[in-house]
Amino acid sequence: MDHPYLMFLGDAPDQLAAKTAQGIVDWRPDWCVGQLRLPGCKADLGIPDLTLEEARDKGVKTLIAGVANAGGFLPDTWIDTLRGALEADMDIASGLHMKLADIAEVADLAERHGRRLFDVRHPTRAFATGTGRKRGGKRLLTVGTDCSVGKMYTALAIEKELRDRGSKADFRATGQTGIFIAGDGVSVDAVVADFISGAVEWLSPENDADHWDIIEGQGSLYHPAFAGVSMGLLHGAQADALVMCHEPTRTHMRGLTHQPLPDIGECIAANEAAARLTNPDATCIGIAVNTKALTDAERTAYLADLEDKLALPCADPVATGISRIVDALP
Amino acid sequence: MDHPYLMFLGDAPDQLAAKTAQGIVDWRPDWCVGQLRLPGCKADLGIPDLTLEEARDKGVKTLIAGVANAGGFLPDTWIDTLRGALEADMDIASGLHMKLADIAEVADLAERHGRRLFDVRHPTRAFATGTGRKRGGKRLLTVGTDCSVGKMYTALAIEKELRDRGSKADFRATGQTGIFIAGDGVSVDAVVADFISGAVEWLSPENDADHWDIIEGQGSLYHPAFAGVSMGLLHGAQADALVMCHEPTRTHMRGLTHQPLPDIGECIAANEAAARLTNPDATCIGIAVNTKALTDAERTAYLADLEDKLALPCADPVATGISRIVDALP
Repeated sequence: MDHPYLMFLGDAPDQLAAKTAQGIVDWRPDWCVGQLRLPGCKADLGIPDLTLEEARDKGVKTLIAGVANAGGFLPDTWIDTLRGALEADMDIASGLHMKLADIAEVADLAERHGRRLFDVRHPTRAFATGTGRKRGGKRLLTVGTDCSVGKMYTALAIEKELRDRGSKADFRATGQTGIFIAGDGVSVDAVVADFISGAVEWLSPENDADHWDIIEGQGSLYHPAFAGVSMGLLHGAQADALVMCHEPTRTHMRGLTHQPLPDIGECIAANEAAARLTNPDATCIGIAVNTKALTDAERTAYLADLEDKLALPCADPVATGISRIVDALP
Repeated sequence: MDHPYLMFLGDAPDQLAAKTAQGIVDWRPDWCVGQLRLPGCKADLGIPDLTLEEARDKGVKTLIAGVANAGGFLPDTWIDTLRGALEADMDIASGLHMKLADIAEVADLAERHGRRLFDVRHPTRAFATGTGRKRGGKRLLTVGTDCSVGKMYTALAIEKELRDRGSKADFRATGQTGIFIAGDGVSVDAVVADFISGAVEWLSPENDADHWDIIEGQGSLYHPAFAGVSMGLLHGAQADALVMCHEPTRTHMRGLTHQPLPDIGECIAANEAAARLTNPDATCIGIAVNTKALTDAERTAYLADLEDKLALPCADPVATGISRIVDALP
């Protein structure tokens, strides 16, 4: 996907509906030159409101539909904006469940104007099955005790820190928000099951010996719905380093009130054991904790205690920065 | 899929190309009333050759295209047979990579005649994500040190043994040959990654307390390409009992000369650990060994040695029968 981006929020009912769009603005502020909001929109990314014409004049290359739409169908007012964007020579990238390519008038118009449609939730590329064959370059994979504990945020923070230090590093996106942020990637959870690790091998190919791919993890080996995806990521990533991500106030696995959280130490051991199938040196180098729900004092105590217990650097990428974990890279 | 079946072999170049068809005949001889072979066919299932007319007169309900076709396209001679089957009021079930539903003239004709097309490699049903919620009934899952080590055969042998003993048992198919044999099932490796365990939960639903679902495993936790599928099966199956399947002469993981086989004991421990996420009682109750490549003396020695080492009943479902493993069911 080409940037700059115009962020299309539609008539998003609240700020949470624009979470993906907000993530893009947070991590790629230079790419996001403005937002386009329809009447009734209750979200605000804090960037300039632009019309399609103004956006075109600012050189926007891609309209990003980075909000959830209710019920899975697109209201006519949204379609009008999508048509307008294509007529203003923009590509469109969507994180909606519904495919742009399946909306006949949008698909036809895109073809007529020679514009591209990106349905980032729906990989269309064919992948080979994984091989586990050793490839050059270094790789880090973020893993988690659960879903939604900061795996994307942690990977992006590590990429940034490495780049700030002058190292070669690329964030490799495996989910829709990450794909918008990286400009490309693979929605690994939407790949056909036989090709999970193969898709991750494709996503993080052979590279320079001193280059780091920082691969965004998905799910958790301990989540009964999504562990297959997490396992394929571990094998495909061939990671030298794992970073465990955790949210300390969670009382059960996301969406499943009957399913307890794993012990962090056990979770690390299970992830290392799985990762070592394709990289015998794979080691967890630190724990990234999302301490947003804790007070400053609680955070300090929690991180110190965890560090003491597991003998690994523990940090909150937001509150304390990720540098101590990056220091531990092999 | 309704039986009886007419087995369509096309112009299969050798017996191996008809491996799927042979598996169906082996396990469901009563369903397979005949075979239809085109000129040049080098495979023979040892059942009567029938024309479409003869098959119709014998009450055939479904034509099974259970052979691999070279290059992924269908020769015209095959298409003629498929058309003839539809005109003779048969459904068609295919294990080909190419979808019958994508061949316009076949799809149109099926619709005109009100016949059904089953593309068993391509699940079309939508599944929910897995939950790991406890459901009634008992379940056994066959797992493996590698791909193609007898997981389907073992599951079918256990179903048969349980039924012979008067127990309630159903084989649950997760691959194309198994689906033809069971008459339904899910090609789990073709499901979208997010839904692997959910598809397995759907496949082996709530049942009577004394009913056994015998679920066909796929891949191996130690295969770098397919472990995601195996993991989703372990979580979705919620198995009370695991049976490890193994082929003792294999020198590397299937298709990957650089990838060593796992130690069987370690492989059992890893499978039990994963399975216990959704069923804390999950236990490996035995090892099914495909000893086809061994002499009688080697087989006896190998099984005795393995049994001694791992303290589990070890049997070859073909050569020694599965009864000692079935005896170990909880």
